[in-house]
Amino acid sequence: MNASTTSSPPVDLVSIRRQIDTMLADFVAAKAHAATETHLPADLAEAVREFLSAGGKRIRPLLCVLGWLAAGGSADIPESVLQAAAALEMFHAAVLIHDDIIDSSDTRRDRPTAHRALAVRHQNRSDADCFGEHAAILLGDLAFIWSGELLHTAALTPRMLAAALSVLDAMRGDVQYGQYLDLLATGQPNADLDRALQIVRYKTVAYTCRRPLQLGAALADAAPEVRAALLAYASPLGEAFQLRDDLLGVFGDPAVSGKSSVDDLRDGKHSVLIAIAFARADAAQAAQLRALLGNPELDEKAAAQCRAIIAATGAATEIGRMIASRRGLALAALDAQPLPTSASNALRTMAVRITAIDTSSVAAHPAENRQPEGVKP
Amino acid sequence: MNASTTSSPPVDLVSIRRQIDTMLADFVAAKAHAATETHLPADLAEAVREFLSAGGKRIRPLLCVLGWLAAGGSADIPESVLQAAAALEMFHAAVLIHDDIIDSSDTRRDRPTAHRALAVRHQNRSDADCFGEHAAILLGDLAFIWSGELLHTAALTPRMLAAALSVLDAMRGDVQYGQYLDLLATGQPNADLDRALQIVRYKTVAYTCRRPLQLGAALADAAPEVRAALLAYASPLGEAFQLRDDLLGVFGDPAVSGKSSVDDLRDGKHSVLIAIAFARADAAQAAQLRALLGNPELDEKAAAQCRAIIAATGAATEIGRMIASRRGLALAALDAQPLPTSASNALRTMAVRITAIDTSSVAAHPAENRQPEGVKP
Repeated sequence: MNASTTSSPPVDLVSIRRQIDTMLADFVAAKAHAATETHLPADLAEAVREFLSAGGKRIRPLLCVLGWLAAGGSADIPESVLQAAAALEMFHAAVLIHDDIIDSSDTRRDRPTAHRALAVRHQNRSDADCFGEHAAILLGDLAFIWSGELLHTAALTPRMLAAALSVLDAMRGDVQYGQYLDLLATGQPNADLDRALQIVRYKTVAYTCRRPLQLGAALADAAPEVRAALLAYASPLGEAFQLRDDLLGVFGDPAVSGKSSVDDLRDGKHSVLIAIAFARADAAQAAQLRALLGNPELDEKAAAQCRAIIAATGAATEIGRMIASRRGLALAALDAQPLPTSASNALRTMAVRITAIDTSSVAAHPAENRQPEGVKP
Repeated sequence: MNASTTSSPPVDLVSIRRQIDTMLADFVAAKAHAATETHLPADLAEAVREFLSAGGKRIRPLLCVLGWLAAGGSADIPESVLQAAAALEMFHAAVLIHDDIIDSSDTRRDRPTAHRALAVRHQNRSDADCFGEHAAILLGDLAFIWSGELLHTAALTPRMLAAALSVLDAMRGDVQYGQYLDLLATGQPNADLDRALQIVRYKTVAYTCRRPLQLGAALADAAPEVRAALLAYASPLGEAFQLRDDLLGVFGDPAVSGKSSVDDLRDGKHSVLIAIAFARADAAQAAQLRALLGNPELDEKAAAQCRAIIAATGAATEIGRMIASRRGLALAALDAQPLPTSASNALRTMAVRITAIDTSSVAAHPAENRQPEGVKP
């Protein structure tokens, strides 16, 4: 609960990440071993291992640990806190495994998604594709269960466990509602900005930023002013992060972002970017977007047309401005409330890192900010 | 921890069930209300409410309460224990919602399954069927999350909570592995009895009987001999229950059982019944079964052919014998270890109830025990 600003060694995010990854790998290896020992198939544990080892930014566990440090928790981070943070990443794997089924995504982090990998692993079955999706429903459930087990076996004190469960119950509900709002709106993109922002609030602000920080803070029994500062930081940061993700989902270079820049358009995702594009589009642009977005046959050429129209409306530029302004608000929240310097600095690093628009990542789509032919500005 | 045999008033299973159902209904109503208050769609909570109110035997929460009573827990059952038991039913809803997607089942308990109900609720969408399945993935996840929340907010003591989480982590893993084994074997029915029994062990013995009893016993801090007696009762009981379920899934009257008697055959479910039928079938019967089972076009006429062959092999009669012998073992386990009389009697009632083959439920399929034409005995 020490919120002093005395200097302390910088937070080593790389080392924390490594510790969390090791914990996850050890946990899953033990699950695979236990399955083999009891004559159960080890391929579910193997699929989770592959999923976790494929990459990912580990934003949620890192923010959890930073919430702990911001609240004055020991800089020698206890194993129990690291394991609670690792539980967030396992939960995230569960969410993404189900999300990829729902979005019919074939790749994530440059590798086959879990349901595709399971289909390939069982390609001798005549129903391999269907089997892969159904097995991945169970796989997501299992990752979800294992996330709980990681938390429950983290040797937290009863006070810490009760505090963690309360935050996690809220976080888990937030993300499911966010996913459902997203699903409801998908295929029906339009100019409704409030709706798009509501999705962001549940799916990303709460789930990705606010709750993980709150979890770490709750474990350290944070003072109210620390909780308030973390909330003031998390809300704009979460919005900025999702806005960037939406931008990369359309204008990103798949080779850099690791995700398709066609899927969101083909699925007809309703995002803030799309809502602003519709709001700013003239009648012809809006009609073209409506005809293109959500078309299951949408190919790279049609995607390029979409990008050109969206850029021409100025929506992409506006999203860039919104990201910068929200990043500024997140950083300003850290200035307003003294937190331990090392935690504060690490929170700054995270804010910049997860909201940065790498120019190389959009280089492959030079349509951005250019005037497409035949489309009015 | 009082395992005396002194007389106590009989356990009122109907009243316990009513209390648990009220808890579940209140919880879901609060979720629907909270959703509406925060401008979130209330249809997920509504879908869970519909699912829970459609019926079901409440075996798991009742066995949990009986585990509590068997271990000498107060006959005036604390709200906290009832809420932990209710959490089991909410978890079961989650499992079934996902199971119905995986099995492509249209009806459960005589009503549309959750994914079908969600598709109908959103039938104005052009992708309504797909939407229903995807929304039901999220719905199952949410029911799962709410199951955790019911447990975490049950005001259990730290000791009770820790004990409950440990049992539940195991139970949740058991059922997912059971479901996965089932999925792996589906579409490839054969004479492998060990494989069929392994599925039963995870999907039903552990998940439906052993763990719920263990949860109640753990909440009451049961003595080792009580735990052992409950285990000796649960294992044969779980097998008997699943064998009966498989029998009803093929020979049951849908009007009585509330479930299709064609789906299991059409899906090509690998069950103990089917394994025994294959083991006892002659070459012609086996070839016919292989041709019929797992055929997505399998209709009522083909299902009747399957039933006739299975009956002719004697497999259905054998399953009836296996159920009776396992029920006997479960009841004998209660004789071998003195438990509080009222709990013991209620466990007897449950054992008989969940393994009974109601003759009316199979009356619609008189093929059982008859010689089908053109099929050798």
